[in-house]
Amino acid sequence: MMEFIPPATRFVALPDGFKLKRGGSLTGARMAYETVGRLNAARSNAVLILTGLSPDAHVCAHEHHPAPGWWDGMVGPGKPVDTDRWFVVCVNALGSCKGSTGPASVHPATGRRYGPDFPPLSLEDLADAAAHVVRSLGIEQLAVVVGASMGGMTALSLVARHPGLTRHMINLSGAVHAEPFAIALRALQRELIQSDPLWQQGCYEAADRPLSGMVAARKLGLLSYRSTQDWTQRFGRQRLDPALAAAAGAPAMGFAVEGYLACHAQRFVRAFDPNAYLALSRAMDGFDLGDEAQGDADAALRHLQLDSALVMGVDSDFLFPVSQQRQIAQGLQAGGVGVSYREVSSLAGHDAFLADLAQFGPPIAAFLSGIDSGRLVGSDPSGLPHPAERLRAPQASSTLTAV
Amino acid sequence: MMEFIPPATRFVALPDGFKLKRGGSLTGARMAYETVGRLNAARSNAVLILTGLSPDAHVCAHEHHPAPGWWDGMVGPGKPVDTDRWFVVCVNALGSCKGSTGPASVHPATGRRYGPDFPPLSLEDLADAAAHVVRSLGIEQLAVVVGASMGGMTALSLVARHPGLTRHMINLSGAVHAEPFAIALRALQRELIQSDPLWQQGCYEAADRPLSGMVAARKLGLLSYRSTQDWTQRFGRQRLDPALAAAAGAPAMGFAVEGYLACHAQRFVRAFDPNAYLALSRAMDGFDLGDEAQGDADAALRHLQLDSALVMGVDSDFLFPVSQQRQIAQGLQAGGVGVSYREVSSLAGHDAFLADLAQFGPPIAAFLSGIDSGRLVGSDPSGLPHPAERLRAPQASSTLTAV
Repeated sequence: MMEFIPPATRFVALPDGFKLKRGGSLTGARMAYETVGRLNAARSNAVLILTGLSPDAHVCAHEHHPAPGWWDGMVGPGKPVDTDRWFVVCVNALGSCKGSTGPASVHPATGRRYGPDFPPLSLEDLADAAAHVVRSLGIEQLAVVVGASMGGMTALSLVARHPGLTRHMINLSGAVHAEPFAIALRALQRELIQSDPLWQQGCYEAADRPLSGMVAARKLGLLSYRSTQDWTQRFGRQRLDPALAAAAGAPAMGFAVEGYLACHAQRFVRAFDPNAYLALSRAMDGFDLGDEAQGDADAALRHLQLDSALVMGVDSDFLFPVSQQRQIAQGLQAGGVGVSYREVSSLAGHDAFLADLAQFGPPIAAFLSGIDSGRLVGSDPSGLPHPAERLRAPQASSTLTAV
Repeated sequence: MMEFIPPATRFVALPDGFKLKRGGSLTGARMAYETVGRLNAARSNAVLILTGLSPDAHVCAHEHHPAPGWWDGMVGPGKPVDTDRWFVVCVNALGSCKGSTGPASVHPATGRRYGPDFPPLSLEDLADAAAHVVRSLGIEQLAVVVGASMGGMTALSLVARHPGLTRHMINLSGAVHAEPFAIALRALQRELIQSDPLWQQGCYEAADRPLSGMVAARKLGLLSYRSTQDWTQRFGRQRLDPALAAAAGAPAMGFAVEGYLACHAQRFVRAFDPNAYLALSRAMDGFDLGDEAQGDADAALRHLQLDSALVMGVDSDFLFPVSQQRQIAQGLQAGGVGVSYREVSSLAGHDAFLADLAQFGPPIAAFLSGIDSGRLVGSDPSGLPHPAERLRAPQASSTLTAV
């Protein structure tokens, strides 16, 4: 087993010959997604959530899968992304291993897993595949696309490549492209996986995955997701409980922080395919929104068509530094988009959109409360709601059951 | 060859049975050092330099070895640490592989390299061994001990364990102990070395060292020494020259930053013994100045006996964050030491004491210019020089040739 699919996952087929940006195409591919809430009759209350590198489509608990999702504090009834009001669609990224087609999937032509033969992937492909899911659900226009981290990059790509597909965007700890520190860090993670003797040029068997390389790569990732002060506050120089160390199979570990990283990394790698990790990691490094405008990312931002956007970053994030979120906000604003920009002060670093919901929740709730979810698709654009109406959170009256 | 010794290195034997803090002792061990400048007749102008994890004792060019040293811009005639005035002693750390006894040295009892059997090392041992070098040179009291990074930690230990051995201290990007981010990062570096199939539990041969693990560990180190903005300014998203990539034996590397890291890491690992790297890395994690005062590092700082100290840190350093240098400055001040504290604003991060000499040089020169280098050892302590005298930089008149 190298695909790790939550039980309530739904699927939609990608069209055969689905073209990839770097050449190549996919046939017999599919996208995994979950939906929560109800699509209204006007199909105007849909919110698409694009994930970071690792999550699956199970964004929050719901009737078909009551276990907590990866963003349970943010999405659900009464939560900042209120599923009593919004019809939430969360997709598993193309290239991942949580249900969408990726290197761990079986190649229909050969009957064997793609493995290292999966064609080179780009975030543009992830955006196109997500757009296909949206349209397959009968949604011509999203109310909002929400993306964080890699999902923030993908959201920018989706807006650029599919003008009119969404009216609003929430972009959290995102970027128009990766900077060299993040690139070097991910390149090193890939090197760690590929130097594991079990790597076998990507042709490993499910039972013999390069887990020690994956563990090291994930530890490096975890270290980069939080600020140094956060680690200090949580662990200080606390020593590892010897019993815990023995249980983790690593009695040599001296400090509590080492035990924490080992534990979390081991849990992660049990449910992630190394080739999928490599494919998405490379796609992040290669992505540049500037490709949509002759290499000029700022120009590409100015061309994005949106009614409004919320852009958020975190002062202690050194993987996607706040200068990158400022760039997004300024570029959108220069293009005439109404932008709310929030720079969160938090020790939680790049992880803050997951870990510091107290600071991310309220601005997101406030931004969504200002968005009309009842506008008819194709209605007269001049028929904008009265500002007072924007603050209401109308319950979907005439609804379609979540597909 | 696993010891990498600069040509002008001198040696002094450690006493047989040299005791180590964590138990064990060394017999037949030696320390490597270089000296620059001339010791004055009063033997009162000596400056001891304690290095970070990797440098050798060749701190700057001099008549016996004119090649540039690792801190050539800081130390030399007319430089901030002016060797026309000061007699500079730089030691290679005990446990290293640049001349001082370490895991790469031959165990006198077995005639074979210590390798993984080298006894557990602590920074207190490095401090004691450096103090032995100082006394062996006939110096009862140093004018100044200078330590940066690991050397800053070692300098604190030396002052704590050898009261009266130095009158002044310059502590750069140092700390009383490591915090969990730095600990986790070094633990991961050690894991990378130890997962290299050539590691062989530390019993590798010189020709078959675990170089790929060392390269990965060094890349991780390099990434942690600079700020993320520094990488962005230097490399941006510049692609790697394909010819350079091929020359580095890694045509798959896409970005210039990857090529830079590969190049520098490969150069480093050709001249560093993996067991020595592990021993010093562990010693840094284990060190706590608080051990000198029942676990209370602040109390240990208050007990340090110094006439004055210069403490410097860098705002973008996330390996030894400035909060740690503030702690040193405040603790010394609380103990009555006259402290100059400088927080440098630089993108060069933890590397700034090497890379940003424009900001580190002047405060060091100013601090040293305020120190009397002519006071007789054992002179009446009340006979402090007139403040005006402190500003003179007397040339050593009656001198001893550098040993």
